[in-house]
Amino acid sequence: MQSIPTSVAPGAHDSGGIRLVGFDADDTLWRSQDYFDAAQREFEQLIGQYVDLHDHRARQHLFEVEKRNIKVFGYGVKGMVLSMIEAAVAITGERITARDVHRIVEIGKGLLQHPVELLPGIGDAVEAIAAEHDVVLITKGDLFHQEAKVRQCGFAQLFRRIEIVSEKDPATYARLLHEFDVPAAVFVMIGNSLRSDIAPVLALGAWAIHVPYHTTWAHENDVDVAADSPRLCRVDEAGALPAAVRAIAAQAQALG
Amino acid sequence: MQSIPTSVAPGAHDSGGIRLVGFDADDTLWRSQDYFDAAQREFEQLIGQYVDLHDHRARQHLFEVEKRNIKVFGYGVKGMVLSMIEAAVAITGERITARDVHRIVEIGKGLLQHPVELLPGIGDAVEAIAAEHDVVLITKGDLFHQEAKVRQCGFAQLFRRIEIVSEKDPATYARLLHEFDVPAAVFVMIGNSLRSDIAPVLALGAWAIHVPYHTTWAHENDVDVAADSPRLCRVDEAGALPAAVRAIAAQAQALG
Repeated sequence: MQSIPTSVAPGAHDSGGIRLVGFDADDTLWRSQDYFDAAQREFEQLIGQYVDLHDHRARQHLFEVEKRNIKVFGYGVKGMVLSMIEAAVAITGERITARDVHRIVEIGKGLLQHPVELLPGIGDAVEAIAAEHDVVLITKGDLFHQEAKVRQCGFAQLFRRIEIVSEKDPATYARLLHEFDVPAAVFVMIGNSLRSDIAPVLALGAWAIHVPYHTTWAHENDVDVAADSPRLCRVDEAGALPAAVRAIAAQAQALG
Repeated sequence: MQSIPTSVAPGAHDSGGIRLVGFDADDTLWRSQDYFDAAQREFEQLIGQYVDLHDHRARQHLFEVEKRNIKVFGYGVKGMVLSMIEAAVAITGERITARDVHRIVEIGKGLLQHPVELLPGIGDAVEAIAAEHDVVLITKGDLFHQEAKVRQCGFAQLFRRIEIVSEKDPATYARLLHEFDVPAAVFVMIGNSLRSDIAPVLALGAWAIHVPYHTTWAHENDVDVAADSPRLCRVDEAGALPAAVRAIAAQAQALG
């Protein structure tokens, strides 16, 4: 990564009971799932030339191939494209042409190269929060692709650290908080995915702000989170984030 | 990553003039390029069913597609497989069958799933060096694949930090040394690639130990390194690494 200044220096701000704020990236800072959904539609259109898609088997088949392949490929565009190709060969009964296989590769290249489109108000929100707290970026997926998007977003320099991880589970967050030397009780994570951004940090005793996105990858939906957790709050737009962090910082200070 | 204990604690060892030793992973700790070479042979055999490979154009074409695609895909198996598929479509004049496309995907899955095969003597060498110095792992490539190999190697717990980066250039090493709070003059990097492990750290004023591997990826060969640099030494087997690090530590102490 470029422009990652110093390590996390606790206490640099008068920040109530919160010492560090983590941001997710895809669908929290910038649009991502929309592009994946569009790629999926392109894929289905292409496969629809070979088989009747009205019974939705192509989508289901692709979902199953993807889920199986995540163990081998991990998350990200490249693994998804390889899964699309594998599913296309199977769904078409090996009838897909070389030209259409190449079109699937091109769908992937398009996904990797589209410009970063920030969500409304997020730049100002990150800036306002960074003025009061140390902030870090914690994102999952392909190293190369995530780094490219971070470079383009325009406010990478606000983050004290940029962590690109392969899985956002409690063990990963625990390892990062240990590296940052920040206890869970003074950390708040902001993100759109209940499974990756919210549930694991609540499990560690940290705080969380859920910012739902209008569309979520099917693989990110299979989780139960107690909506009434006292350390979870929900906001519906980026503009509400600085106040939500301030409210949590006050609560954490009252508890601490 | 699992089992990454504390951050780098300088001065934990009586370590002469060296405070931190970095290890490359692929073809320094474990075999990697051999598997890529075997995958390349499988690919050529498959393409050889469609075109005459005696003029070596397939290899050249693949090399060109890979080089162009690295800007989009980054390093690693998944990008290589996508490049293989793209090259196969072009080289065969769109004649490659869906079944053979799927075989290329399977070549990639094999590469991602083969067991980690440590190079002779490297486990003992890392252990001996870790007994005298803080050691870190600095490796380039696909996050998910590198993490899987680190988990399997059996001595991940010896490394104070495991850093998986998208490019090993002077900027990356400078950023890591800054994060570790270790000046270049007391850092030594051990690896097989002149371009990724040796040249960039020498450029920063650090030390380097080159351990050549019997085969090197064509993309890693395009670099000039002054073989007579006073801060570079070369060893031909892992067993010689602890003594080489000790010799550098003594030199660095004499200079410091």
